[in-house]
Amino acid sequence: MSDLIGHSVNAIDTPALVLDLDMMERNLRTMAAFAERHQVLLRPHAKMHKSAELAKLQIAAGAVGVCVQKTSEAEALVAGGVHNIFITNEVVALHKLTRIAALTRVLAPQGGKLAICVDSMEGIKRLADCMNDGRIASGITSAIDVFIEINVGQNRCGVEPGLPAIALALEIRKHPALNFAGLQAYHGGAQHMRSPTERQAAIVGAVKAVSDTRDLIEAQGMKVGLVTGAGTGTAPLEAASKLYGELQAGSYLFMDADYAANEQAVGQPRFKHALFVKTQVISVHAHHVVCDAGHKSHAIDSGLPKVHAFSSRSELDYSNGGDEHGILKPAAGSTRLPSLGSMLWLIPGHCDPTVNLHDMMIGVRGGLLKGIVERIIKVDGRGALT
Amino acid sequence: MSDLIGHSVNAIDTPALVLDLDMMERNLRTMAAFAERHQVLLRPHAKMHKSAELAKLQIAAGAVGVCVQKTSEAEALVAGGVHNIFITNEVVALHKLTRIAALTRVLAPQGGKLAICVDSMEGIKRLADCMNDGRIASGITSAIDVFIEINVGQNRCGVEPGLPAIALALEIRKHPALNFAGLQAYHGGAQHMRSPTERQAAIVGAVKAVSDTRDLIEAQGMKVGLVTGAGTGTAPLEAASKLYGELQAGSYLFMDADYAANEQAVGQPRFKHALFVKTQVISVHAHHVVCDAGHKSHAIDSGLPKVHAFSSRSELDYSNGGDEHGILKPAAGSTRLPSLGSMLWLIPGHCDPTVNLHDMMIGVRGGLLKGIVERIIKVDGRGALT
Repeated sequence: MSDLIGHSVNAIDTPALVLDLDMMERNLRTMAAFAERHQVLLRPHAKMHKSAELAKLQIAAGAVGVCVQKTSEAEALVAGGVHNIFITNEVVALHKLTRIAALTRVLAPQGGKLAICVDSMEGIKRLADCMNDGRIASGITSAIDVFIEINVGQNRCGVEPGLPAIALALEIRKHPALNFAGLQAYHGGAQHMRSPTERQAAIVGAVKAVSDTRDLIEAQGMKVGLVTGAGTGTAPLEAASKLYGELQAGSYLFMDADYAANEQAVGQPRFKHALFVKTQVISVHAHHVVCDAGHKSHAIDSGLPKVHAFSSRSELDYSNGGDEHGILKPAAGSTRLPSLGSMLWLIPGHCDPTVNLHDMMIGVRGGLLKGIVERIIKVDGRGALT
Repeated sequence: MSDLIGHSVNAIDTPALVLDLDMMERNLRTMAAFAERHQVLLRPHAKMHKSAELAKLQIAAGAVGVCVQKTSEAEALVAGGVHNIFITNEVVALHKLTRIAALTRVLAPQGGKLAICVDSMEGIKRLADCMNDGRIASGITSAIDVFIEINVGQNRCGVEPGLPAIALALEIRKHPALNFAGLQAYHGGAQHMRSPTERQAAIVGAVKAVSDTRDLIEAQGMKVGLVTGAGTGTAPLEAASKLYGELQAGSYLFMDADYAANEQAVGQPRFKHALFVKTQVISVHAHHVVCDAGHKSHAIDSGLPKVHAFSSRSELDYSNGGDEHGILKPAAGSTRLPSLGSMLWLIPGHCDPTVNLHDMMIGVRGGLLKGIVERIIKVDGRGALT
């Protein structure tokens, strides 16, 4: 694929995942400036792009590090030269915790850092055991930052706010290899509430619950160093909360159709679509055409892709044609159907699982119509599930 | 991952794609016997498993070859030693057609064969040009089997039945490198109609349209060598049609939750679930638990996975927890929640795009509870999109 570098976008075979580098860099700068203006740390979620190259770009632009969701994602990024990683998830399997402990010993001499979430006593004990076993076996002393995940309304992982969190903090304190670093408070359910009012109500609730929990823990003589969370949908709310010290938004870098469907609040930073699936018309009919991108090319968990329209006369609606096909019809107000072989650009409904379908992203400079392929960006953590 | 071979299923890290080899082989035999009994050829769709090893197993069990959907899938399977492949799709990009022509020249000296679909004059001309260019450049004479795809009700690709197909057949006849091999008549929309009556009505319609089209073409003095199509949902109908000479079913080998939800007709062969996502409980709550498999581990285009229940007391309902999580609650009539670290087995809603998320399938012998890892099966065509 590297033989594409320097060639026109027209040379890109379909379907392919294409990154508009100009738009991506614009999003990068917008979020970095936003975090700086609000005096909060930025730790973008790399589960979205799974790329060490992009993680390092984010860190160079001011991010303190990145988040991941999986042990194997952390390993892929460490191998790619990323040295400050937060696994924002619970890990309870002993062989995974052993790998995590090993990562902390790889990172420690480089000044790197690993962090992880817990939400149970058993999880803390297993983590501490594996960290200690690693110390004894290797002679290398390392520690891991531990965040207690609080359930702030998503009702997925996370301990309930208030008293249950205290017991966990006290347990963490018992183990020298575990640094109690603060509270993880991500409200996944709030990210795609369409109205700003709904999102605000959700985050107000989260802030109250986490703030009370923090006070209870600090009343036990323990410092809650950091409250961390937020996604692209709610980041302005957490940034303004005076509670959250770190934002974990990830999708802002690529901006997908689902996030674009959120009604924007005043003052919310605006991001541009930077991630596209390039596709081609392979079959033409009286009232529809068929393209070569189906849901093996883009994820549809958060809705079907939108077709990027270069003019209002050429708007198309995408409907699902199965694993390998998309069915395109003229949108209301449009009548024109593209011809056989025409190239089209899809804006994925959800960028994270779309990227995970591809081994590479093709980085284009100068736009989708006349751009040039500048570089190929590896999805280091593609399929990193464990 | 090959260090797992010989170990217990308990050693498999989560989430992971696991193939129950006993069930898979049972399905393999059931379908081979079914095709033989009905005196039809079997050409299973390898877009489902994308594995050269499994394609060769199917061929060893009596299949004439396999189908694929993409040029790059054909390349991956040829590289893995599969020599009889039908691309059941339209290909119009010149660089892809050039690769297809090259594949025919690789396969010809080995007695191998490639076939492809067309549904437009332009598509036929492009294919013929690329086949001829390749002959001239290489000096190697090769040909490709060409099937006219007929729209039998899916309204996706395929020329309309009747007169439009004649023009295509006449065009194919003009080109010495193209063998007119017959008609592709796959009714994707009928595969998951839940009632046997609906499926039967759809296939009766397809048979009528294709039979008429065949007669029209044969009236022009051209032989329609083969009518091919069918999926796991309708294969008994096409097999009994006396029109279809070849079945393209693929999912039967693994059997997913969506196909299992079809009401079965009398005499329809019964297939067993052979493909599972092994997952683990990472977070426990009062009324739900969370497992480590979300829609980056299994596709959800055809519904959420079912949780395999080893006893009726332990039935669980899976709800979507996002890219990396599943949320499990006791099913009606059950109250028991699994404990932290418990292993669970998910039956994917749709096997094709689920397999495409994984680089490997872990083949287990002896069942999910006490089985042993026998071999690791590579998904050769994972991410083969072009």
